[in-house]
Order: sequence, then C-alpha cells, then structure tokens
Amino acid sequence: MRFFSDNAAAACPAVLAAIAGANRIDTAYDGDSWSQRLNGALSTLFEAEVEALWVSTGTAANSLALAALCPSYGSVVCHRDAHIQVDECGAPEFYTGGAKLLLADGEGAKLTPEAVEALLATIRDDVHQVQPAALSITNATEYGLVYTPDETAALGALCKERRLGFHLDGARFANAVASLGCTPAELSWKAGVDALSFGFVKNGGLSAECLLFFTPGLAAATHYRRKRGGHLLSKGRYLAAQILAMLEDDLWLRNARAANEAAARLAEAAGPHRLLLPVEANEMFIKVSPEEAAALRAQGFDFYDWGPGEARLVTSWDSAPADVDALAAAIRAL
Amino acid sequence: MRFFSDNAAAACPAVLAAIAGANRIDTAYDGDSWSQRLNGALSTLFEAEVEALWVSTGTAANSLALAALCPSYGSVVCHRDAHIQVDECGAPEFYTGGAKLLLADGEGAKLTPEAVEALLATIRDDVHQVQPAALSITNATEYGLVYTPDETAALGALCKERRLGFHLDGARFANAVASLGCTPAELSWKAGVDALSFGFVKNGGLSAECLLFFTPGLAAATHYRRKRGGHLLSKGRYLAAQILAMLEDDLWLRNARAANEAAARLAEAAGPHRLLLPVEANEMFIKVSPEEAAALRAQGFDFYDWGPGEARLVTSWDSAPADVDALAAAIRAL
Amino acid sequence: MRFFSDNAAAACPAVLAAIAGANRIDTAYDGDSWSQRLNGALSTLFEAEVEALWVSTGTAANSLALAALCPSYGSVVCHRDAHIQVDECGAPEFYTGGAKLLLADGEGAKLTPEAVEALLATIRDDVHQVQPAALSITNATEYGLVYTPDETAALGALCKERRLGFHLDGARFANAVASLGCTPAELSWKAGVDALSFGFVKNGGLSAECLLFFTPGLAAATHYRRKRGGHLLSKGRYLAAQILAMLEDDLWLRNARAANEAAARLAEAAGPHRLLLPVEANEMFIKVSPEEAAALRAQGFDFYDWGPGEARLVTSWDSAPADVDALAAAIRAL
Amino acid sequence: MRFFSDNAAAACPAVLAAIAGANRIDTAYDGDSWSQRLNGALSTLFEAEVEALWVSTGTAANSLALAALCPSYGSVVCHRDAHIQVDECGAPEFYTGGAKLLLADGEGAKLTPEAVEALLATIRDDVHQVQPAALSITNATEYGLVYTPDETAALGALCKERRLGFHLDGARFANAVASLGCTPAELSWKAGVDALSFGFVKNGGLSAECLLFFTPGLAAATHYRRKRGGHLLSKGRYLAAQILAMLEDDLWLRNARAANEAAARLAEAAGPHRLLLPVEANEMFIKVSPEEAAALRAQGFDFYDWGPGEARLVTSWDSAPADVDALAAAIRAL
Repeated sequence: MRFFSDNAAAACPAVLAAIAGANRIDTAYDGDSWSQRLNGALSTLFEAEVEALWVSTGTAANSLALAALCPSYGSVVCHRDAHIQVDECGAPEFYTGGAKLLLADGEGAKLTPEAVEALLATIRDDVHQVQPAALSITNATEYGLVYTPDETAALGALCKERRLGFHLDGARFANAVASLGCTPAELSWKAGVDALSFGFVKNGGLSAECLLFFTPGLAAATHYRRKRGGHLLSKGRYLAAQILAMLEDDLWLRNARAANEAAARLAEAAGPHRLLLPVEANEMFIKVSPEEAAALRAQGFDFYDWGPGEARLVTSWDSAPADVDALAAAIRAL
Repeated sequence: MRFFSDNAAAACPAVLAAIAGANRIDTAYDGDSWSQRLNGALSTLFEAEVEALWVSTGTAANSLALAALCPSYGSVVCHRDAHIQVDECGAPEFYTGGAKLLLADGEGAKLTPEAVEALLATIRDDVHQVQPAALSITNATEYGLVYTPDETAALGALCKERRLGFHLDGARFANAVASLGCTPAELSWKAGVDALSFGFVKNGGLSAECLLFFTPGLAAATHYRRKRGGHLLSKGRYLAAQILAMLEDDLWLRNARAANEAAARLAEAAGPHRLLLPVEANEMFIKVSPEEAAALRAQGFDFYDWGPGEARLVTSWDSAPADVDALAAAIRAL
Repeated sequence: MRFFSDNAAAACPAVLAAIAGANRIDTAYDGDSWSQRLNGALSTLFEAEVEALWVSTGTAANSLALAALCPSYGSVVCHRDAHIQVDECGAPEFYTGGAKLLLADGEGAKLTPEAVEALLATIRDDVHQVQPAALSITNATEYGLVYTPDETAALGALCKERRLGFHLDGARFANAVASLGCTPAELSWKAGVDALSFGFVKNGGLSAECLLFFTPGLAAATHYRRKRGGHLLSKGRYLAAQILAMLEDDLWLRNARAANEAAARLAEAAGPHRLLLPVEANEMFIKVSPEEAAALRAQGFDFYDWGPGEARLVTSWDSAPADVDALAAAIRAL
Repeated sequence: MRFFSDNAAAACPAVLAAIAGANRIDTAYDGDSWSQRLNGALSTLFEAEVEALWVSTGTAANSLALAALCPSYGSVVCHRDAHIQVDECGAPEFYTGGAKLLLADGEGAKLTPEAVEALLATIRDDVHQVQPAALSITNATEYGLVYTPDETAALGALCKERRLGFHLDGARFANAVASLGCTPAELSWKAGVDALSFGFVKNGGLSAECLLFFTPGLAAATHYRRKRGGHLLSKGRYLAAQILAMLEDDLWLRNARAANEAAARLAEAAGPHRLLLPVEANEMFIKVSPEEAAALRAQGFDFYDWGPGEARLVTSWDSAPADVDALAAAIRAL
C-alpha cells in the first residue's frame, strides 16, 4: 500500500488503450494525426487559442517554458521549495543557458505578491545583477496547497506590471482544478499565465506531459529547443494519444478528483492537530512520532519521512479505496 | 505502403505487451525492478560489464554520450552527413556546452582512419583551436552502409592513439549486427568503442533507446546530465521494459534481419545500375527519374526524394512482405 | 625585424598618453567621462547613431556580436577560414549558447553572395536543423583581401532578404577603409551591417576593441552579456581613452595607411609571380622555398610559415621603414 | 574626495611605468617574456609551485576558477552576499555551464564551517539535486572582514572531507594579508585553497588580475576556457607587466597597508557605536542618519548609501592622507 508519490502510480487503462490505438505507421515526430489534434483539443479545454507541445517529463516542460520566458542573463523568481529549484538537477539553468533562480519564501511552497515584491526589491537595476524576467509558481504546490484563481491573478497582475513572464508548473494542475472547482482557463491565461506545464503522468498518464503557451509567439522557438533538448520523439503519436485520451470525457479531472478525495479522507482521519498544512489537493503532510511512523509501516503503509517527526503521504488516481480506508483507520488508531 | 523511414513504423507487439506488463505501481525514476535489470541484461548481451541508461530519443542518447566524452572546449570529429550534425538541431552543442563538430568526408557517410587523420592534421595544437576530444561514427550509416568489426577497430585504434573518446551512434546498430553476422561486442567495445547509442525505436520499440557505456567512469556524471536534460522519466519502468522485451529471445536481431531482408529484396529488384550505394542494411538509395518516382507513387508507394533524380527507401521490421514484393515488382517494371 | 603579426606590435604613443591622461579616480565600469563619450565619438565617425561598447579582445567583440544576432538554436554562416571558426577556441559557440557555425568557401577567406546562397540552400527549413540566423564576414579578410562597399552591400542585401543578422569582424577594419578610400559608413551600416567589431589593438591600441551596433535594440542585452562574460572592466576609462585617442585626428586611419603602405612595398618587391593572393591590406602571402625562407630568416626577418612553400608576412602601424626596405630588398634578392 | 570604491581609484605609477616598459613588439598572447615570468614570480611569493594566468577582471578570474572546480551539473557553496552571487550578472553560471550557487549565511559575508555544513545537510545525495562541488569564499569579505589562516584552514579541512574544490575570491586578498600580517601561503594553499583570484585592480593595478592554481591539473583546461571566454589578450604582456610591477618590492602589500591604515583612521574616528561591523581591511560600514550623510556630502565626501541609515566608505591605496584626515574629523564632528 504505497503512498510515496503519485509519480509512481500505474497508467490508467484509457491511456494504455490509446497507445495501442496509435500503434500503426504514421508520420514521424509530431506530424502525425494525433499530434496535429493537440492544439485544437487543448484550445477547446482552455477556451482560448493555445499552442501545445508534448514532452516526456515535467522537468522538460518546465525548463522549455522557462527558456521561452527568461534569457540566459535573466532570472526566474520561484519559491525556495519549488520543484524547479530542488528537484530538477539544474535543468532550468541548463535550458536557459545559465539563468539564475531567485528564491522567495512562503508557507507551504506558496508565493504571495508581497513575497515576490520583497524579493524583487533586493535586485538593483544595473548590469551587475541578473534582472528578473519571469515568475514561476506551482499549482497545486509541492506541499499540496492550491492557488485560487484570484491568488493566481494577483501574481499575474504583478507579472504584467513588472514585465515578467508567468510560468505555471502544473504537475498537479488537475488536482488544483479539481480542488477549486474552477475552469482551467481561470487558473491559467485568465489569471495572466503565459506558459503552463500541464502534467498528466502523476495523474494516470504513462509518459506524456503537455507544455502550453497562451501567449502568441512563445511556441515558435520552443519547437527548436525541444528538438535540441532531445525531446522530439520520432514516434510522437504515442505521447499525443495519451494526452488526447486524458482529455476525453474529462478523464484528467475525474482522476484528479479521485486522488483528492482519497487525500481528503486521510486528512479527516488525521485531524487538524496532526496536519502540518491544510490538505487541498492530493498530498498530506502530518506530524508523526517515529513510533507512530513505524506502526503505520508495520501495517504495510509506505510513505516518505519528511523531516524529524514528519511524514508525507500522497494519493493518486488509482489509490485503492480499501487501502485508503485502511490507512485512514490506522491513522485514527495511532 | 510507406517506405519513408523506419522511425515512423509501429511498435512491435512484444513491446506493447511489456508496457502493459509493467503497468503497476513501482519505484519511480529508475529505481524500479525493470530498470534495475538493464545493466545485467545488456552486460550479458555485450559479454562485458556495461552501464546502461534508458532515454526516450536517439538524439538524447547521442548528446549525453558526447557530453561524457568531450568537454565544452573540445571538438567531436564526425562525418559531414552524420545525424548528430545535420538532424539534431545542435543537440550535441547544447549538451556539451558548445563543443564544435569537425566534419570529415567519406562515401556513404562512412569514415576511414585516413579521412579522420587528414582532418586532425588541420588542427593546430594550441589554445586558439578547440582540440579534438572524440570521434563519433554511425553504424549502420545514415546512407545504409555498415562498418565491419575490423573497420571499426581501425578507428578505435586511432582513437586510442590520439586519445579520443569513441562514440557509436547505433540508431540502426541492430541492422549493422544483423547485416554482418558478428556479435554486438565485436562491433563495439572490442573495437574500442567507449559509448554506444543502441537504438530500439527504429527497430520496433515505442519510445526507448539505450545509452551504453563500456568504459568505467563515464556513466556517473551522465546520470546527472540525463536528469538535468529532463530525460529521467518518473515512470521509467515503461522504457526499461521495452528494452528488456527487445532483448528477449533476440527480438532486436530478428526485427533487424526482417528489415534488412526486405531492403535486400528491393535492392535486387533495383539492380546495380540503379543503386547509388550498396544496400548493406535497411536503406536503399536509388536513381529514379521524376517520371519514375511519380509512377511509383501513383501505385501507392511513399518515399523521400533525396536529391535531383534520387530517392531514399527505408524498410522496417514490419514492412509487409506483400508491400515489399509489390514495390520490388514496381521497381523492376520501371 | 618581426613580420609575424600586427597583434604583437607596440601600442602607439598617443594611446599610452591617453592612458596616462585617464589616470585619476573616476566612476567605475563604464560610468566614467571617457566611456560616456564613446557613443558620440563613434556616431560622428560613422555618420549615424551607433551604440559602442569597449571590450578587451576581438574575440569578445565578435562573440558578443554573434550572441546578439543568433540564438542558441540558430547558426552563423561564415567562411571556413574565418577567425571566429579557426582562432577563437569556440568562443562564438560559448557566447551564443551553442549555435553552430556553417562554413562557406571562397578565395582568400572572402565570401560571395553565391557562396552564401549555396550554403543556405543545403539547410532544410525544419526543426531538425539549426536555422541560419546571421552572416559574419571579416574585412579585411584573414588573408588580407578587402570587401568593397558594393561587395559588402550585396551581402547585406542577401542578409536582409534572408532575414539574417550581419556581423562584420573588423579586426583590420581600419586597413580595409584605408585600402579602399571609402568612409567607415560605406563599409558598414550603409551596406547593411548590424554589428561591427572595430579593431584597434592590431592597429596601435594596447587593450581596447570596440563593439558597435548600428541596429537599434541590439546593444541592450549585450551590456548584460558583456558583464556576464567578465568583460566589464572596473576601470573602463582606460579602454575608452584608448579608443578616443585612436579616433583623434584619424589616428586609426593614419596607422592603417602606414601598415598598408609597408605591405604594398613588400608586395611590389615580391612581384606577382610570388604572391599567392593580391595584397590589399597589410598582409602578404607568398611562395617561398624552404631555402629562401631560411635565407630571409638568416638576415633577421621573422614571419610565419603558412603551408609547404608558403609564408605569411604582416606589417603593422610601426613597421620601421628601414626594416621594410631591408625586407623588400631581401625578397627582391631571393 | 571619493570614498565610493577602491575599484575606481587610479593606477599607481609603477604600474603605468611597467606598461610603458613593456611597450615594444614581443610574442603575442602569453608567449611574451613578461607572461613567461608570472609562474615563477608567483611561485616565489606563495612559496609553492603555482600556475598563474592573467585576466582583465575579477569576474573572469572567479568564473574561470569556478569552472575549473565545478561541473555544469554541480553547485558552488558561497555566502548570500558574495560578489559571485550578487555582482557578476551570472558569470559563474555562464562559465560553469549552468551550475547553481548555494547560498549560506554569516555575519559580514563571512562563512563558518558550521554554516556550510548546515547548508550541505539540506542537499540530498541523489540525481535530482545538483551536488556540491566547490566552496567559494571572499577574503577580505565584501563587508571588509577577514578570514584568519585558521578560519580559512577550517573551511579547507571541510572541503577536503567533503571533496569540495576550494576557491578564494581575493579581490582584496592583499588587504587581508596586510591586515593579518601572515604570509600569502598561509591564507591560501596552506589552508587548502585550490584556486585564488588574486586581485590587483582595486589595489593600484590598471587592468590586470591574476588567477592562481595551487592544485596541479586545474590550469590546463583553464587556458582553453580563458581563450574561449575572450580573455586571452593578444598583447598580454601589458597585463603580465602590471602584475610583476605590483609584486616588485611588495608594492601590492604596501598599497594594501596604506588603504587599510586609512580605513583604520576612519574607524577610530567613527567609534564602536557607529560601526556596523569591525573594520578589518579597507571598508567601513557605519550608521549615519540621512542628515549626517547629507552633512558629510556637503563637505565634499562621496560614498555609497548602503541601507536605510547606513553608509559604506572605502579607502584605497591612493586615498590622500589629507582627505582621510578631513573625513575623520568630519565624522567625529557629526
């Protein structure tokens, strides 16, 4: 009963079926009929003209987005605990040609306009410092919090005022949308987002993530950068087909809801005194003593220790209800 | 009836089955049980201790290999028509941090020690020029020729003498092995090769290529570079499973033989006067007048024009015998 | 009696005097009064609004110019023997973030529109190849030939049509202007040049080169790139003062004329049968047997062997007339 | 009466004389007789075999040093206020190919082993994070504090244990040596330093800084990187001559002592209640109200505001005793 991470979950059946359905000869790279339908399908979902590129990893999506928004001599503002800072081995620096990440603080890996402004205020406007060129946030955050449309828009307004590109790492964008009950548009371009890494792998995909540009002109160079980064698969149809399958009948949203609901059940079991942060998506951070953690593990529940006396538990689209119930009961019984 | 390129072919059934077989929760990235078996499986095949990393594209494999063999201030000798020079949008430059490719000549994209030596002789040994650090060849070449073990070993000896790393772009390594009837070892480390991009996608894979290091010490940094390049998939088991499936019962070799045999049938039909180069693997380059090309296309055969009065036809593991026979007949009838 | 290279010559007295004259406390970097006068002084000389940045080397000027004109996923067309290709250890690749140099041919390191067009015709317009973004020529060329204003303008027209940035490596721009008797404007922006590396060091400077942008908007990012490359000296006034001194009373032109005239005297002595190329600036390439070369050296004349039976002799602003006469006589006497 | 920064000071007469003395034709780049004497002169001063390369800026020296010590996929630990982090526009990222700077804290921009260890403890040892490869400290620090030989050695021991390269940004190394009365060796290689940026420009030089490698093997690649960065001046002798002049009769030490003594006089005048930090080299940070600052400026003293109610005053080798006395009196009179 694994509650380590949603990125280790299985792929959902519709995704496997889509791969099988794409298994015939077609045009290579992204010239195939599946890839050609991506822009349309995502423009429909987002109620706007978007340009969509498939890639294999969220790290690739994030880094390509940042390379489109920030020159090598610029910098990207992000949270100190952002995935792009602590979990991508310098991929943003690699793809941007050496831009700097400027680290802001905020509870639960969540940024506020005030925190961003405070950081920007430390940067002198001269050639001796890399000038801020972009802001990147993660929604849902690395700690399972969500930015509302209004919170996102407040950051978007700041970006517009300060002439910063606005990137949204949406590895768990589906969980955020599901949590908030808003539209994808409200959490992205309507709030000023220029580029979105729309994650599918954590949400039931096999190997396809989608990089979306809402702002015209940003995608053109990215096609070259994707190829140059080795991310233009020759049989790209298998990636496009996965994404199309996830969009079909809002599978992406249903999967995310399932994961969120599982986390909510666990959160309720844990109770407010044990929660380190509110559970707003599919991640739960709790206080547990070493003995309690050992007790849970002894019952077959796997999860990450997060700090001394802390644990992270992540649900996913396929968390078995029985497992979730069993874990909830075990937490209650601690 | 498409004879454009083997990289547009379908994935073979065993590969799809392996993906389905890996579809359960497991450790993320390359901590899963499939990925953990890669080193062993490839060491067995190559009769030597090797380190193997899966990636999604041949471009990623090639670029990571070159980054391991050549510093940013060095250069890589390759053929003027090498895939790394003309088809990867500067990925080698990107991954090496700006190394230079030095271009040598040779019939059919094939290099000889003499051609390499002649190129090296033009480089002054001073800090004003990027010094050669590696040699990269492609076997089978971009024009469907093969290097024999002896030819490879001659280049390997040159590399050793000149202290160059030796990279083999094996996008069609299987076709070369199948064509020559030698062992994988004879075409690689026994001939002095340090790093091999072992291609599976053109040969029936879906999205998995394998980067192999024969020389100890080269793989360590590559693990970081792979992550940094955005090529460490979180559900890596789906890539490892593909490779393991291709190795099972020498599927890789059987697929390559099928493609080569189809090409041989076409070559026989074309006859020596029409062939621009010998057909030694699964690619055929022929002279065809515009009228002849149009006639073939009118019968439903698709292929690339290569130059004025020239065409490229590529067979693959799943070229239907009936299609091949029909094309052979059509060529004979020109 | 050294005829190795003009880049080893002494600095001229006016340059040393200017350095001494700038030797007082002032604002650091390029905030001083000398640096602040550069744009004006060069705008006057070039009869147009230009932005000028001092740097310490021609390699820095060239690389910064190319980084302004070519993205990392683009390519720069240049001659196979261009300094940026063979003498800068990959600095253009470093500063552009890994762009590729595409090499064209032409007698005496001189490009023609036809040669450039022929090269461009080999580049497919797809994401698999780095797309041409800039053209770089050297005037006077690495082999001492000059491009006339018309020849330059023909290349400029091609650049405009093909949407290429146009860079001029003017390490010996002064010698070209002196040779042609035209204006600096005619050899640069009037002919479509976007960026010029205006060389002073080979022409009597000590350590100052000037990077000029004729096209608005290109300089802004270059200020950051210059700093980032470590080329923003804290006591920049000593560089600006050198350049201003060279512009004073057309010292740059007088120095270049002196060097050119010395080369012309040598060329006359050598005679057409001995010259490998016309002598149009301050470099002479001649046929000399090993015995003849040895004879010249025995008389105290130093120069580079260039190839079997070939030598390069370079004059400079301070080539002593007596030395030149002696060498001319020695050549005649061979 | 400028107390802005030592990097705006004049060059000292011996340096100008050395430049004049080098003003004759010689071998280009670093083949001249001055450059050839650098290794010897610095090996003598440092009582060890060192390899020395001149460059034009401290930023170049620092970045080249870090590129020698840290791979692109690694990281450099430094203080949050280090010059390499806040004043070089990302040059370390540029030269290393995108390494990350990891920022530690400490009073007065000074690091302790504890602070470094605490930072290292936050880095997981896996491929998702850039692994620490080097430590860089500045002595004297950006806030005018000095590391003693023992303090430096403690950090050096940590580097050895953790297998980190150890870089010392010595823009004001001379001031640190002068302040401590120790030998250059004690503050560098004897304390475990691998590479030192030995600054001369702030201390009376014109345009020459020196990059020193104490650890064999690090300099070789740096020669290529220097050229590739555009930092190999063709008339390098003018840089080497400056450094040799500064070493002559310990001019570097005498200049630094003069600057330190001037700062000490100012510190004494300011008194402990006004000093934000001890004055250990040639920088003083004091509390001053806006009115007090205005009063000083009205008397002709220029300096930087540092924060609200704070000012930075920097003395240099040529701070006129009369100016220093006048400023000391003015501070006393506040």
